[in-house]
Amino acid sequence: MNILVINSGSSSIKYQLFKMPVKSPVCSGLVERIGIEGSFIKHSVYKGEEKVVLEKSGFILDHAEGLKQVLFLLSEGENAVIASPDDIAAVGHRVVHGGEHFSGPTLITPEVKEEIRKLFSLAPLHNPVNLKCIEVAEETFSQAKQVAIFDTAFHQTIPQQAFRYAIPDQYYNKEGIRVYGFHGTSHKYVSEQAIQYLDKKESKIISIHLGNGCSMTAIKDGKSVDTTMGFGPLSGLVMGTRSGDIDPSVIFHLIEHSGYSLSQLSTLFNKQSGLLGVGGSSDMRDIRKLVNEGNEAAILAIQLYAYRIKKFIGAYAAVLNGIDAILFTAGVGENDKDMRAAVCSELSYLGIEMDIQSNSDYSGGIKDISLDNSKVKILVIPTNEEYEIAQQCYNLWN
Amino acid sequence: MNILVINSGSSSIKYQLFKMPVKSPVCSGLVERIGIEGSFIKHSVYKGEEKVVLEKSGFILDHAEGLKQVLFLLSEGENAVIASPDDIAAVGHRVVHGGEHFSGPTLITPEVKEEIRKLFSLAPLHNPVNLKCIEVAEETFSQAKQVAIFDTAFHQTIPQQAFRYAIPDQYYNKEGIRVYGFHGTSHKYVSEQAIQYLDKKESKIISIHLGNGCSMTAIKDGKSVDTTMGFGPLSGLVMGTRSGDIDPSVIFHLIEHSGYSLSQLSTLFNKQSGLLGVGGSSDMRDIRKLVNEGNEAAILAIQLYAYRIKKFIGAYAAVLNGIDAILFTAGVGENDKDMRAAVCSELSYLGIEMDIQSNSDYSGGIKDISLDNSKVKILVIPTNEEYEIAQQCYNLWN
Repeated sequence: MNILVINSGSSSIKYQLFKMPVKSPVCSGLVERIGIEGSFIKHSVYKGEEKVVLEKSGFILDHAEGLKQVLFLLSEGENAVIASPDDIAAVGHRVVHGGEHFSGPTLITPEVKEEIRKLFSLAPLHNPVNLKCIEVAEETFSQAKQVAIFDTAFHQTIPQQAFRYAIPDQYYNKEGIRVYGFHGTSHKYVSEQAIQYLDKKESKIISIHLGNGCSMTAIKDGKSVDTTMGFGPLSGLVMGTRSGDIDPSVIFHLIEHSGYSLSQLSTLFNKQSGLLGVGGSSDMRDIRKLVNEGNEAAILAIQLYAYRIKKFIGAYAAVLNGIDAILFTAGVGENDKDMRAAVCSELSYLGIEMDIQSNSDYSGGIKDISLDNSKVKILVIPTNEEYEIAQQCYNLWN
Repeated sequence: MNILVINSGSSSIKYQLFKMPVKSPVCSGLVERIGIEGSFIKHSVYKGEEKVVLEKSGFILDHAEGLKQVLFLLSEGENAVIASPDDIAAVGHRVVHGGEHFSGPTLITPEVKEEIRKLFSLAPLHNPVNLKCIEVAEETFSQAKQVAIFDTAFHQTIPQQAFRYAIPDQYYNKEGIRVYGFHGTSHKYVSEQAIQYLDKKESKIISIHLGNGCSMTAIKDGKSVDTTMGFGPLSGLVMGTRSGDIDPSVIFHLIEHSGYSLSQLSTLFNKQSGLLGVGGSSDMRDIRKLVNEGNEAAILAIQLYAYRIKKFIGAYAAVLNGIDAILFTAGVGENDKDMRAAVCSELSYLGIEMDIQSNSDYSGGIKDISLDNSKVKILVIPTNEEYEIAQQCYNLWN
């Protein structure tokens, strides 16, 4: 069963094609700079150990044209993986915001599209382009089932005491102000991997997704019960360019007393803060280089980053009344051993004891990097949102 | 040594007179509605077990006139406690914001007043009136030493990783954006009481101040290392009328998409949220009545209130790598046994085990309400900011 997974951005389309239930994709690719000068496509076909990479440049007007070119790459020439668009059984679309309406994979109907449209104001940068790409895919792959997988869906099990803010009811009922949480597909995937690895369905798990965006989720018996991102993807952890939690008084003060505008502050907190704003780069690898040179700003950046994660480990241990395992995933979580070590240090009261050597040696796959006597398992688990999306689609019919 | 303690608000002066080192005040009082129709003074004189209360109404134009009337009540008639203003050795002023300049009790000089003035923009509702009252007291009690005790002072030991937000350096260096923390005098007082009670100087303590404003502090070996209020007194816990932590995206969204103004939202989060906004009253006693009637909004309000405290207990346990004691203080902390019980429930992973009977029976004073086998002591400790202020003044000369 061929499932095409699509993750669309305002000027990009990322895609992977799975022959389910096989876990590795048969091809993957990226359409970049759609509608902008310098458009290009990078398309990789996997043939056993071998990888064939096709690169193609030339102006791509819009997402419809982008997807047509993807179809061409999938179905034409010696590296074709399908014979025609009709070979695609389902297209799984990552949709950022599902509000309170969607708690699982959803077959797209006109009503579903209308719901996604209603959520535009909650995710103005993402839902419009996600919907656009769904409509383009409906034309391009007219025989395929179209499925939406929402980033917020996994968090719909969060109880009211954790998802409500302490503001009057009307802001929740009329304006939809609540914690939605994001990165749900990743948290779901890695926590299920962990439950399987530990063979422990009744479990208290904290998953720590550290990519360019960062979030943590408290997971009880496989269900999300709290998460660090809130109404939007700004709150919680320190991220590549986002500040994470910050006293809202700061906004009132900077506007009233220092003459900033609202949009300046939105840009500041979302795009100029976090590792970039404090340490000079949004890429942890650059920050590490600066730290090694003794750069004080970079040192502060990683201190703030690690400290915030630590506090949420503690907070979620309280929410769960204990922890069985903590999981590190995504770019920084999988690749920065020093960050993992900093986060896990001085948490002996919880029974978190890292095997420093095992942590240093980590080179991929699922691995327990805790000491044998550690009460809490420390796992590194590579995330795989694309496969999770393919699998959720696949499970709808299998 | 007579020390007069003054806590001034925009239209009020609260005061207590101590004959140090005696802990109970010889008199206390309140000047209310200064500059507003219906001004009055309530003055209580303590004579052993007996209390004489004098009430006086009549328009009071300003703080200067208010303090003159206080002086009259202190020094004239059969209930006089001093013979003349010169009998007051020191006046201790509660000043809300000391910025990064003041980390302890401070003898007021022209330079100190200038520093307090520089901090007006950080505490526009409090520092101006605090300074005004200092100047009035300098005239009224011209022979007394004037001392400032800052609400922020105790938190000046918080390390950088906890006091910095993840935003660019310039906002800290030029705009003073950082965690300052408040309620310092209370957290200092109750944590010192606890250290004495437990006879444990090297200790990991979490103090939980639940009044109309609410905050928690992580205290290591007597020093504040993190606190829930941040740049302003808005963040952290759910309070009487304040929301506590809320994703700043909510502000951007409500202004951009729902037409709210900045000042509406500032009022909303500061004055119309918390227990009042969710449950219908800012007074926990009213909320409890509603809860007993099965009112769902009130039930949600206490759930949010307790849940937030619990998360911070967990977070600070991580900051401290364990806890020796948690302390409840201030109005709700001292008087709401159900809230204490809710907060301490299901934290067995930390070794927090409450003695339910002992908690229910609490009727004042310092009391350990944990079970004998509880790894973490749970203490109720009445706060006494006025005495703490008097004592800090006293210690300057003794």
